[in-house]
Amino acid sequence: MTELGELAGRLRRFAEVRDWEQFHTPKNLAMALAGEVGELLAELQWLTPEESATIMDDPQAAARLRSEIADVMIYLTRLADTLGVDLAEAAHAKLDESERRYTVESYRGSARKAPPLA
Amino acid sequence: MTELGELAGRLRRFAEVRDWEQFHTPKNLAMALAGEVGELLAELQWLTPEESATIMDDPQAAARLRSEIADVMIYLTRLADTLGVDLAEAAHAKLDESERRYTVESYRGSARKAPPLA
Amino acid sequence: MTELGELAGRLRRFAEVRDWEQFHTPKNLAMALAGEVGELLAELQWLTPEESATIMDDPQAAARLRSEIADVMIYLTRLADTLGVDLAEAAHAKLDESERRYTVESYRGSARKAPPLA
Amino acid sequence: MTELGELAGRLRRFAEVRDWEQFHTPKNLAMALAGEVGELLAELQWLTPEESATIMDDPQAAARLRSEIADVMIYLTRLADTLGVDLAEAAHAKLDESERRYTVESYRGSARKAPPLA
Repeated sequence: MTELGELAGRLRRFAEVRDWEQFHTPKNLAMALAGEVGELLAELQWLTPEESATIMDDPQAAARLRSEIADVMIYLTRLADTLGVDLAEAAHAKLDESERRYTVESYRGSARKAPPLA
Repeated sequence: MTELGELAGRLRRFAEVRDWEQFHTPKNLAMALAGEVGELLAELQWLTPEESATIMDDPQAAARLRSEIADVMIYLTRLADTLGVDLAEAAHAKLDESERRYTVESYRGSARKAPPLA
Repeated sequence: MTELGELAGRLRRFAEVRDWEQFHTPKNLAMALAGEVGELLAELQWLTPEESATIMDDPQAAARLRSEIADVMIYLTRLADTLGVDLAEAAHAKLDESERRYTVESYRGSARKAPPLA
Repeated sequence: MTELGELAGRLRRFAEVRDWEQFHTPKNLAMALAGEVGELLAELQWLTPEESATIMDDPQAAARLRSEIADVMIYLTRLADTLGVDLAEAAHAKLDESERRYTVESYRGSARKAPPLA
């Protein structure tokens, strides 16, 4: 069992035993995911990019960040599971595309276009 | 190497060889993550919850959903990597808390409180 | 003075007297806006669309909704002000486009395309 | 008729004549709002805060920003209208609270707490 499969399984059982699957439609889970991302943004919104790069040096901020990122991961995993999407496989497939599209030769250090990952 | 570690490593190299690490501050990556979640929401916004539950039966919608979920996973993985957060570990730690907090006895099927996962 | 101009002016003075203009870059304000929208989503995420349509009948939920919508309006107004965008004018210009694009004849009641406003 | 009332009325008629009111539940509109905010973030995500402050000097970026802000305003206005919330009144009520809470004496220039507006 992969670590992503294990996490998805734990979340599935968590919902099942509480009879919460009725609430876990893709639409609802996507909203919950967005809500958690909003909380993550709130931790970073007034920092400069440079301050954000060293935020984990502050133990209290680090704990909050870790907790918000965990929430995002939890809802993303649950959403992907309800849709039957394999997160690692989907991410690698997208990266295959991005590597073809954003060739190193053309995009190295380039700021002429918003540098994407995906 | 775990599958999450492998994905994080691939993203790190993807950024390195393009000299894009300069753009990948936690602040910027959190914004990119939120932008991708916005695209995911757009796929589901006009569907009923029931329609959203069968969306993967439509091959074109399924491909778009898979692609948007991949983008979210990519930026979440990259963000966690720049912050030194282990996604699986953080998610399980949060679930340990949730299991203590939302006991099966008290919350089973309950709609008296928004049913959370986290 | 229009009501939007008055609100923008009050927000400008609010920031000025606290010396908070330094934090109010468009980038930071857009993140704050997204964070507030996340809180708004959290109020609606587990409701059915039908339940969401009658949520204002519940006085406590109504107060929370009103408060979250106010926060979104506040950051949107402040963001538009820092960018020099007139909210009403920009919205009407966009609607002019939408009226040309989504003609009543072609789009009436149609679910063949996600029904947009903009 | 105030400018906000006028915009809300135009949006109401826009939806009515296309028979799109069936899609415009608060839940769906909140998702659409979040989706538009995601597009707004995407315009600003790789910029430094300083670059974001002068983005309107670039005519193409300015047009995109104006258009994204308009979309956010459109869905926020439509959402508030379906909930019976007066945007200007709600924002001023929230600011009354914020002025009491964040006194100039205690918060001037302070970075000890994320400087909020709301």
